[in-house]
Amino acid sequence: MKASCSDESVERVLNFLEKHGLSGHPSRGVERTVIGVLGGVGPWGAPGSIGGINPTVEESLESMPEVESVLRVSKPYKLASREFHPIDTVVEVPTPCVDGGIVQIGGEAIVMMAGPCTVESEKQLMTTAEAVRKAGAVVLRGGAFKPSTSPYGFRGLGEEGLKLLAKARDEFGMSIITEVMTPSDVEMVCEYADILQIGTRNMQNYMLLDEVGRTRKPAVLKRGMSATIEEWLLAAEYILSQGNPNVILCERGVRTFEKATRNTMDISAIPLIKRLSHLPIISDPSQGTGRRDLVGPMSLASLAAGTDALLIEVHPNPDEALKDGAQSLTIEQFRELMPQAHAISKAIGRYFVTR
Amino acid sequence: MKASCSDESVERVLNFLEKHGLSGHPSRGVERTVIGVLGGVGPWGAPGSIGGINPTVEESLESMPEVESVLRVSKPYKLASREFHPIDTVVEVPTPCVDGGIVQIGGEAIVMMAGPCTVESEKQLMTTAEAVRKAGAVVLRGGAFKPSTSPYGFRGLGEEGLKLLAKARDEFGMSIITEVMTPSDVEMVCEYADILQIGTRNMQNYMLLDEVGRTRKPAVLKRGMSATIEEWLLAAEYILSQGNPNVILCERGVRTFEKATRNTMDISAIPLIKRLSHLPIISDPSQGTGRRDLVGPMSLASLAAGTDALLIEVHPNPDEALKDGAQSLTIEQFRELMPQAHAISKAIGRYFVTR
Amino acid sequence: MKASCSDESVERVLNFLEKHGLSGHPSRGVERTVIGVLGGVGPWGAPGSIGGINPTVEESLESMPEVESVLRVSKPYKLASREFHPIDTVVEVPTPCVDGGIVQIGGEAIVMMAGPCTVESEKQLMTTAEAVRKAGAVVLRGGAFKPSTSPYGFRGLGEEGLKLLAKARDEFGMSIITEVMTPSDVEMVCEYADILQIGTRNMQNYMLLDEVGRTRKPAVLKRGMSATIEEWLLAAEYILSQGNPNVILCERGVRTFEKATRNTMDISAIPLIKRLSHLPIISDPSQGTGRRDLVGPMSLASLAAGTDALLIEVHPNPDEALKDGAQSLTIEQFRELMPQAHAISKAIGRYFVTR
Amino acid sequence: MKASCSDESVERVLNFLEKHGLSGHPSRGVERTVIGVLGGVGPWGAPGSIGGINPTVEESLESMPEVESVLRVSKPYKLASREFHPIDTVVEVPTPCVDGGIVQIGGEAIVMMAGPCTVESEKQLMTTAEAVRKAGAVVLRGGAFKPSTSPYGFRGLGEEGLKLLAKARDEFGMSIITEVMTPSDVEMVCEYADILQIGTRNMQNYMLLDEVGRTRKPAVLKRGMSATIEEWLLAAEYILSQGNPNVILCERGVRTFEKATRNTMDISAIPLIKRLSHLPIISDPSQGTGRRDLVGPMSLASLAAGTDALLIEVHPNPDEALKDGAQSLTIEQFRELMPQAHAISKAIGRYFVTR
Repeated sequence: MKASCSDESVERVLNFLEKHGLSGHPSRGVERTVIGVLGGVGPWGAPGSIGGINPTVEESLESMPEVESVLRVSKPYKLASREFHPIDTVVEVPTPCVDGGIVQIGGEAIVMMAGPCTVESEKQLMTTAEAVRKAGAVVLRGGAFKPSTSPYGFRGLGEEGLKLLAKARDEFGMSIITEVMTPSDVEMVCEYADILQIGTRNMQNYMLLDEVGRTRKPAVLKRGMSATIEEWLLAAEYILSQGNPNVILCERGVRTFEKATRNTMDISAIPLIKRLSHLPIISDPSQGTGRRDLVGPMSLASLAAGTDALLIEVHPNPDEALKDGAQSLTIEQFRELMPQAHAISKAIGRYFVTR
Repeated sequence: MKASCSDESVERVLNFLEKHGLSGHPSRGVERTVIGVLGGVGPWGAPGSIGGINPTVEESLESMPEVESVLRVSKPYKLASREFHPIDTVVEVPTPCVDGGIVQIGGEAIVMMAGPCTVESEKQLMTTAEAVRKAGAVVLRGGAFKPSTSPYGFRGLGEEGLKLLAKARDEFGMSIITEVMTPSDVEMVCEYADILQIGTRNMQNYMLLDEVGRTRKPAVLKRGMSATIEEWLLAAEYILSQGNPNVILCERGVRTFEKATRNTMDISAIPLIKRLSHLPIISDPSQGTGRRDLVGPMSLASLAAGTDALLIEVHPNPDEALKDGAQSLTIEQFRELMPQAHAISKAIGRYFVTR
Repeated sequence: MKASCSDESVERVLNFLEKHGLSGHPSRGVERTVIGVLGGVGPWGAPGSIGGINPTVEESLESMPEVESVLRVSKPYKLASREFHPIDTVVEVPTPCVDGGIVQIGGEAIVMMAGPCTVESEKQLMTTAEAVRKAGAVVLRGGAFKPSTSPYGFRGLGEEGLKLLAKARDEFGMSIITEVMTPSDVEMVCEYADILQIGTRNMQNYMLLDEVGRTRKPAVLKRGMSATIEEWLLAAEYILSQGNPNVILCERGVRTFEKATRNTMDISAIPLIKRLSHLPIISDPSQGTGRRDLVGPMSLASLAAGTDALLIEVHPNPDEALKDGAQSLTIEQFRELMPQAHAISKAIGRYFVTR
Repeated sequence: MKASCSDESVERVLNFLEKHGLSGHPSRGVERTVIGVLGGVGPWGAPGSIGGINPTVEESLESMPEVESVLRVSKPYKLASREFHPIDTVVEVPTPCVDGGIVQIGGEAIVMMAGPCTVESEKQLMTTAEAVRKAGAVVLRGGAFKPSTSPYGFRGLGEEGLKLLAKARDEFGMSIITEVMTPSDVEMVCEYADILQIGTRNMQNYMLLDEVGRTRKPAVLKRGMSATIEEWLLAAEYILSQGNPNVILCERGVRTFEKATRNTMDISAIPLIKRLSHLPIISDPSQGTGRRDLVGPMSLASLAAGTDALLIEVHPNPDEALKDGAQSLTIEQFRELMPQAHAISKAIGRYFVTR
């Protein structure tokens, strides 16, 4: 749109689009307003429907007095692209711990999410939740449904684990993030969780993405362990195209030939996503490295590179953890990390969300 | 068991195991019989339960007159390992095209599976089915539910596609292999398919593996695009541990830095799987290379390395294919490949299943 | 050139090119003749000089009666590309074991190259050479200069090792292939070797490539362990552009995340190189897998995919080898492989070079 | 050694070691002194010679009153390991720009190294040197010998480029870092350079490592593009074992499947090297990303993770650069980066070397 366009002129363009069977998605910034335009998409997808504006309609659009120019989005993802939606998306997560009951992810303030890899018992969860809450975390992580490489490994406590998370939520005033693994569990997990997590193995589980897209829950989409940035944004597009705008991306390391670390964390994905997309991007240095002694430095590196949140595994007794003990911080180590994290966030002109 | 043990002595050992809460899985070869033993596994998995035989029970077992020795399986996968089950598994697939109505996968004879990547229309499917059947294929491939990297890509005809596959099955006397993408579709796809296919993106979709494990349908498990051999066999273990013994592994290329091919096909996985596991292993050179001009040579290489079947994409007009045209053979190219494939199979002392 | 062009017309075009400061490289096939054209390249390389034909000269060329058309080579490598040189290059290696004293690599006949990874002692080398010669190898491999990942590892016998190779050459009538690691050794190694080998770690050691390019020795250029096909052909271009046309490419596996094998052998590189280039391509399944039990199947797969030679490590007592024993065949295993290799070569209409 | 051991007791242990044909390498910290011990290594390396202390000698050592305990170094690299040498190595680089004429790399202060990828002309070099010097760089980078993937690419000005670097050194008071590509050039490059650079393609060019090891010049060893951390430290061991202790490691990205960046920068290598080794580690975000817009964020991430120096490509007019313009910062962008870099260094309790 032309600079300083009025609300009415935006409305006029939106009406014009609707009349021609197209949907408009306005993104209003301080200096300019951009309207993203999508064609109709059928039930199974209609190849080539995006951007397929009738040339006559395009010309009419271009000649409207409030329209500055019509550009085609060059990326295969549309709703997820910054071209389509130039202003940063800020996802709002309900929380009992902040005045107004909302934690923002993707704004100026950085969010600390911490907790055990897996909910193992009430005692383990409550001890960890209390400690990380005191140290500055505002979101509690903890898996109730856990993907396990082996069928004989621990697969989580299921709904019982979700109930323990809900209890911790009430007791310590934290938002809850927890994983959902299959479409038929989405409804149940939504009852307990403030943020859904889609794990690395499910980044291309399209039925799950569709189902999460039909809710309006904030959803953290972890990068597939060998996914390109483009595939990752296309997976986000699945959720967005079903109508759920609350997508948060999470870098958690990719698979390489290196054996000294569990994964190779791609820190460059953080600034790259910021350039390509308007969605928030967060960082999981626990999965990303698989080594407790690297979680601290990689948290600081993520912050310096621009992450919107950290997702860190903490366990009261990592050596006895049922899963991933080697990559969990002790409570003491987590406490020591916080002031360093604050210092880096200050250095780049940001700050952590606190109660 | 000791050499030349009788059926009764096998029975005696199985009874002994059952009495102690263990399950025995006999594998009878010409020269020796091996009984694999599993401990009880709880609903969410009980870590360490495998191989956890009570030492007293182990001693009693060892002192039975028919038992030669008790060995522990060293791999993290048990049911899938050759240590546990030394004899090759031969999966039997119902088919209308062979006397007796069965096609064996994993025996001496090699199976040709061919067809379009995706079922697009009745005409496209029937033309292809007829042509590949005439040229020597006995299993028809064709996707009705298709994973698409983009939500705007073609995602298949759904149940309508399954019905067309069933029609082709009747008309040309071929078994059907088709993909299933989510647990809630398993029952429906089983009604039409002779072989279920689990795609590369779903190799670690554990809920899907569990669900397929609860059927007894032959299931082709494609290797995840960045899965190690061990992770792949552990994914097979998910299906096996739910009671479905009819698992077939499929090498389809892994992701590397190379840009000239879509994937890098790991032909060494074929002989390696034969050493580590008793399960059949098949080869998909279409997905494995992404280039029509490499499908022929990689089919021959797969055969020379010991593949039990080939899974090849064929399209009557690849340039107009809705998906993956670049990697589909023309009908003519497929016809030319068959005599070369026969020659290689003969050179290694095997042959192709024919009508 | 137009079909059925005479020698004179080729000469005329070559003269025309020379007059305009360009060099012509004719490639004469049965049905057509192609003349590759290169511009002048300065001492440090002159960016953009290749293909930089003056448009006026290009027009004049196109209007010559014997010229059918002028095409630009689209690849970044020129001399190595099949566009530039459509006919297969056949490299001739001097050998005492065949009538005429020449072994051809890249023709219809396939060459077996075998021997120890490293020359350790006269006895070890002579025992192995005799055995592999009897079993059908015509080229003897053996490292005198060995790259070792650790400075404390065995780095070879140096010139003493070369002398032992020369002795084996005389005694058993085999050609010798051995590695050269640095430019200043090229002259010395050339005195003993029939084929120079450039190892995977040196694929982009440009000074070494230049130096080998200044000889006319046949040179096997191993693929870098994470080199793309394009980078590999550009490395070949270094040797070719210095005037040595006798380049042989060797696939030896690339580095991936897989831990069960030392490398992941990219068999698809064999047919792909055949399409992109006119140079011979050979296969090293010993380095390619790092596992003795996979060398046999991967040799057969390489043959089925079109390899021009096999390069196989054989050791009289692999468990005592100073280097890479785990991937060396025993003499007995090598003997058993040969008839299988013959059978596959026959199935694809080729045969092995024999005495 | 026992706590608070005297200089004499260290001397006594060193004498004892020498008498038994072993070399001792003391590393004195504030609280403890550790003496690394190496056995004799023959000309071509003697396998297993490291750590091969005679058991009797080991017992005698353990019973000396000044010795607290004898431990075996568990890593394949010895001189490069932190077990062997617990105190951080600080490499001293001569420089005209700091009082005392020394810049330390690996101490508390961080070093900014900047300049063009390649020396193209006097004007280009001098303009860049002046600008980066004013903005805070104390080391000038610039390639005179350049590895080029294509033989037709620009390969540098050679010795003429070195002379221009020397001129810039004098004029702007900066130390010089420049690449050496082959053993026979080491002596010449040493005449001009303050720091030698060994490029990613030459990390396993062992003859070059040996030759650099025979000098005492500070040497930056870039990580091979698909090298594991262990292979990288073993390459450092080559230089160290020839007697040159001034080795500096440089992370510059590894090769993965990602196409949006030239390499995937492994930031976790920075803290990991700090744990495994005593050598300084620096970071090259220009090569590491290949994208100008990511150089800033990845510089900050490297600093937060603990890098000892940054190596950044700057060009007065990147769009006209002969090499790697896409990853070069403009002078203006470099100036803007410096205060952000200062802020991060301050947040982690470090600071940049200034004049």
